[in-house]
Amino acid sequence: MRMGERLDYITEELLIIQSEDVFSFSIDAVLLARFCYVPKTKGRIVDLCSGNGVIPFVLTQRSSVPIIGVELQKRLCDMAERSAVINQTAPQVSFLEKDVRELHLEDIGGAADLVTCNPPYFATPGRNEENNNPYLLKARHERNGVLLDFVRTASQSVKEKGKVAMVLRPERLLELMNAFRTFRIEPKRMKCVHPKSSKEANMILLEGIKCGKKGMSILPPLVVYHENGSYTKEFRQYYDGEN
Amino acid sequence: MRMGERLDYITEELLIIQSEDVFSFSIDAVLLARFCYVPKTKGRIVDLCSGNGVIPFVLTQRSSVPIIGVELQKRLCDMAERSAVINQTAPQVSFLEKDVRELHLEDIGGAADLVTCNPPYFATPGRNEENNNPYLLKARHERNGVLLDFVRTASQSVKEKGKVAMVLRPERLLELMNAFRTFRIEPKRMKCVHPKSSKEANMILLEGIKCGKKGMSILPPLVVYHENGSYTKEFRQYYDGEN
Repeated sequence: MRMGERLDYITEELLIIQSEDVFSFSIDAVLLARFCYVPKTKGRIVDLCSGNGVIPFVLTQRSSVPIIGVELQKRLCDMAERSAVINQTAPQVSFLEKDVRELHLEDIGGAADLVTCNPPYFATPGRNEENNNPYLLKARHERNGVLLDFVRTASQSVKEKGKVAMVLRPERLLELMNAFRTFRIEPKRMKCVHPKSSKEANMILLEGIKCGKKGMSILPPLVVYHENGSYTKEFRQYYDGEN
Repeated sequence: MRMGERLDYITEELLIIQSEDVFSFSIDAVLLARFCYVPKTKGRIVDLCSGNGVIPFVLTQRSSVPIIGVELQKRLCDMAERSAVINQTAPQVSFLEKDVRELHLEDIGGAADLVTCNPPYFATPGRNEENNNPYLLKARHERNGVLLDFVRTASQSVKEKGKVAMVLRPERLLELMNAFRTFRIEPKRMKCVHPKSSKEANMILLEGIKCGKKGMSILPPLVVYHENGSYTKEFRQYYDGEN
């Protein structure tokens, strides 16, 4: 462990190295890893904008296929690789320090069956506190590629009829669905996450199929908190992969 | 009342002439009339594909402005006009027998502040039972205009910064949002309706603003039934306009 780092639980069985100064995973990433379809025993999974690797680690609980996390920031890749050792998930999980915009099929060993991505949420350059922290700035703001770049690479990295799953804010839903369409990923399943049942959604999980047929389903919504602030049973089950 | 017609309650205060052979309103239309923003005392509302007029009648409970229902089918227009007499909502509510594709601003007396539309849901020609019933065929299937036609007329009929609200099935969400964009209606508010909390959405309420800024909210979901099949309290309140 390096200065400022700590070891956190993702779930009861999974640990992850984090650092407030650099990056901490959000529940968004865990929910995406629970939401997406996975190839169970054959194929390959690629996670773009992998951060400290939370999605690959969660996916090991659902699949035995190789999982490759692609992350631009050396410091985050390094944390993710050390977490892989701690979780004893190497060699299933590996990380590649690379700009997603420059990823080629050779880098990942051929087209994947599933590509996941929890991209930077904000199209605008960060102002406020992030300005002083280059790690957070790159992780949260579209400083090194925009949504279309990530979806383009996802499409180029996935097999025909393979799945692409991403998480984003509701205000960018139409932009995300059209980005999918632009790169021949047909939006097929969507799930809205609401902080409380009386509140607007603050997260959208979207999955598409490369060269899939038209027609989308909106899955049951997920509500995170009761009105009193405690987690709902459905959220705990979904987060823990018990659904 | 004519042969085969009956008088039903929409809500405690509102009656409507219906006929199983011709057309019966669905809860979809009522929810749309509860969901949309309305001009309260100034302006004008237009309801396209008005059927037997359920949306205009519900909107009289929320607004005092003139409401014009546009409906292609003479038989439905006639039923709607007689319901207006029964509900004593004339002259606030009037109906125009016209193909939505041929509607002009002069027909409605100038641009509206709100345009609502519960269009035919099915792009494909009807097979099964509807084949034998021309009224239902026209009401449910895109025999006299397609989604783009209805959205085009909605856009042409509404003021800049005015609202357009429509209801459709989730599988056509992206098509609907892009149709809005095509005619410069920016999608702004969306609400998913789920038959039960554990079920996929079967209805989408979408509202846009003509020449509005980008950025959409996904409102709290609406669940219609408890698992035991009884209506939820939230549904009853929403349907009755008590939210």
